[in-house]
Amino acid sequence: MQNQFAVGMALTILACPVLGQDVADFAIDYDIIPERLANQAVLLRERALLDNLSVDLVESITTEVGARRVGTEGDRRAIAWAMAKFDELGFDRAWAEEFPVAHGWNRGDIEAEIIAPYPQPLVATALGYSVGTNGDLVGEIVEFATFDDLLAVPEGDSLAGKIAFVSYSMSDYEPPPGASTMSGYGQGTRARGRGHVEAARRGAEAIVIRSVGTDNNRIGHTGSGFGYEEGVRRIPAAAVSAPDAILLQNMLRRGAPVSVRLNMTSEITGPVVGANVIGEITGRDGSDDYLVLGAHLDSWDEGTGAIDDGAGIGAMMAAAAIIGQMEQRPRRSIRVLLFGAEEIGLVGVRAYAERHAGELGNHLLGAEVDSGGGRVHTLVSGVGPESLAVVREMYKLIAPLGIAWDDTNDANGASDMSVLGRAGMPAMNFLQNSNDYFHYHHTPNDTFDKIVPEDMRYLTAAYVAMFYLAAELDVDFRQ
Amino acid sequence: MQNQFAVGMALTILACPVLGQDVADFAIDYDIIPERLANQAVLLRERALLDNLSVDLVESITTEVGARRVGTEGDRRAIAWAMAKFDELGFDRAWAEEFPVAHGWNRGDIEAEIIAPYPQPLVATALGYSVGTNGDLVGEIVEFATFDDLLAVPEGDSLAGKIAFVSYSMSDYEPPPGASTMSGYGQGTRARGRGHVEAARRGAEAIVIRSVGTDNNRIGHTGSGFGYEEGVRRIPAAAVSAPDAILLQNMLRRGAPVSVRLNMTSEITGPVVGANVIGEITGRDGSDDYLVLGAHLDSWDEGTGAIDDGAGIGAMMAAAAIIGQMEQRPRRSIRVLLFGAEEIGLVGVRAYAERHAGELGNHLLGAEVDSGGGRVHTLVSGVGPESLAVVREMYKLIAPLGIAWDDTNDANGASDMSVLGRAGMPAMNFLQNSNDYFHYHHTPNDTFDKIVPEDMRYLTAAYVAMFYLAAELDVDFRQ
Repeated sequence: MQNQFAVGMALTILACPVLGQDVADFAIDYDIIPERLANQAVLLRERALLDNLSVDLVESITTEVGARRVGTEGDRRAIAWAMAKFDELGFDRAWAEEFPVAHGWNRGDIEAEIIAPYPQPLVATALGYSVGTNGDLVGEIVEFATFDDLLAVPEGDSLAGKIAFVSYSMSDYEPPPGASTMSGYGQGTRARGRGHVEAARRGAEAIVIRSVGTDNNRIGHTGSGFGYEEGVRRIPAAAVSAPDAILLQNMLRRGAPVSVRLNMTSEITGPVVGANVIGEITGRDGSDDYLVLGAHLDSWDEGTGAIDDGAGIGAMMAAAAIIGQMEQRPRRSIRVLLFGAEEIGLVGVRAYAERHAGELGNHLLGAEVDSGGGRVHTLVSGVGPESLAVVREMYKLIAPLGIAWDDTNDANGASDMSVLGRAGMPAMNFLQNSNDYFHYHHTPNDTFDKIVPEDMRYLTAAYVAMFYLAAELDVDFRQ
Repeated sequence: MQNQFAVGMALTILACPVLGQDVADFAIDYDIIPERLANQAVLLRERALLDNLSVDLVESITTEVGARRVGTEGDRRAIAWAMAKFDELGFDRAWAEEFPVAHGWNRGDIEAEIIAPYPQPLVATALGYSVGTNGDLVGEIVEFATFDDLLAVPEGDSLAGKIAFVSYSMSDYEPPPGASTMSGYGQGTRARGRGHVEAARRGAEAIVIRSVGTDNNRIGHTGSGFGYEEGVRRIPAAAVSAPDAILLQNMLRRGAPVSVRLNMTSEITGPVVGANVIGEITGRDGSDDYLVLGAHLDSWDEGTGAIDDGAGIGAMMAAAAIIGQMEQRPRRSIRVLLFGAEEIGLVGVRAYAERHAGELGNHLLGAEVDSGGGRVHTLVSGVGPESLAVVREMYKLIAPLGIAWDDTNDANGASDMSVLGRAGMPAMNFLQNSNDYFHYHHTPNDTFDKIVPEDMRYLTAAYVAMFYLAAELDVDFRQ
């Protein structure tokens, strides 16, 4: 009774003003969610709201490991950190699954400066897996407002001796009606991902893009492309900061040729080894099915990987650990999958899918956090039609956190989990406030101070309640 | 009549909601400000609001010159830029007054990293006029929460072999009741200015401070101290970014010694030459008295000097130029004083005061903008008791810009102008919104994109109206 009262109070106080719905809408159907489980989910949710574990985990990995790009010493330290943390947090077992990565990469150093008509230094960063310049590379800048404008130039030698400059600004992009707010990022990743190939096809010596981000800081945003192509010259690729892109544009507007010197010592190296690290809270029923909570362990190499993806690591490890702290194990197993090599193109999860091809059908439900630690605001499921009503009922237990319901049921797995989603795994995603995510994303600025502890606790609480219920209920989310 | 109507309309529409005062409060006393001058001031004010010249000037100096630390090539380009601009803008004469500076400084390069217990790179910047490390300098970090805590350690060898770390955070500082919101900056400049001397007195090998700023960016804030002292060892001084200071603190909290490697190639060099550049709109009455609008031409060397002090340069040059575009010259001369070497301790204005010692009494009224380009919100005068009533009446002409009146009359000159203020020059300062000023101040992030054009136009309009009236009225602001 006390627990039921707690549910009622929380709904009255929190849910109404947030969602503008009647309390009656949130009455639990105890035929679907047994009263005991509902009450337990509320207790776990409230406990997670008071538990700073998710934040402490981000603090730990950013302080004790820091940057952890695949194949680096930092990545190896991150793998060891994850193994030790799973153990420390009381997981029943933890293991690492290594996989080969075709190439490593050394970032090296970068120097960039305008040498004419007005000499000024530029702040730039090498794009991931770019080749170096092999000494000084000097060329006149040719600006393209968008990647499409670059594509519109004839292939061959249109840009011979030149440095292509795509000045597309994610901040200024206005998505077409109905498009996702993320479409501005998608537009930016076109030039980041393919610019070096398309500029080379047109004879350019190098490509420089405006950083794909939403900030105004003099810090470049790295990120990796889709690799070089056989038969196309490998040219260096770098991103200048937003203020430096604006400086180049202001100088170009004066009409005189603008020449830039680039010196990058980046180099692609031989194969390296990455690893996915898995921790399990083993279910009490001995079933082969399990639930998976995902995040990626690797990060870019210039920040300490706090929002990308320390937040996901912290929230998912903490959610499973808090469920694991109960008196008895949940009915089904919960696995936390910390993927390696996400940043270079979901390499770790692909290795995982291959290795676990025979048991993909046992992945009963999957979620991933890879959009930072911002406040959770909407639940989107992607489950079978029969179980949707159960998820709708489970949702009522987290509605008091101020979370809305998206009834499209079209989630198919976020980030790494999209690979498993496409293979048929049911998905559950929480959408989060990510207004400042692309201020810091892929920059040295991705550091622990960007984490908002209260938001992390809300995020963790939402996963705790939903995955506790998913683990206890006798529901097949594939149906 | 048409002009008078314009005054009335502006007051009705703008002044009431902004200031919550009666229109009657803003009726002009035409015995103090002749109707013709009042109307003209309104027209000039409104014209300046529509004129982008101040913004264009900041764009010009940041694009065509960029960083301009005294004694550098950039400083010499800035001096030439200012001379050419005064000419282009129709000033009657312009000249440069050179002065010697005892030492130049090469920033060189900086490498900083934590080497134990958890190796991680640090983002740091050399403080201005620091010596270098002469190769790698490795030492254990000893944290002091404030400069006073460092002072509390006995002199001698308390910090032998150590690197002092003052982690004072300007963002977290809460000023005592009644203290200026700037007092947090003042606290920060204590360690920035004297830390290298006081740490050396205690045996430290180097000093590292948390950047004096209010941002959370992984960018260090430079700035200069008050020099080294005879008889005290010259140790290197650097500022780490806020996120790096937090990283050091998080690591130190674990209890194990934290060791850092610093490698700085900064060096103090021989004497250099700086210059103040002066442009004059020559008054039509041939009087020896003149009004002065100030800003500083030099900047720190990592940004392009947009807010510090491109905004001042743009607003002051544009204000005088707009007055100079009238059909006839103002009665008294208006000089724009662009001081050199402000950033290393008001060196240029001191040379100016010495050279013009015989005519300091001719400086009838002075203003300076050196707090960025933010929206102007309050007028503070520092004039003689007899002329205060006139200034109060002049103020009515700019009140419609949403500017409040501070009746303390205690202004004594901002930034460089404080030197002339102390020598007796009457002062007029506008306070501005500077909420984000210390996000960017003394960093690579001080770039043109931080300028808000509308705010710059308001700032310029306020100076145009006030200095037009001050030039025309037969008032001695010293009385």
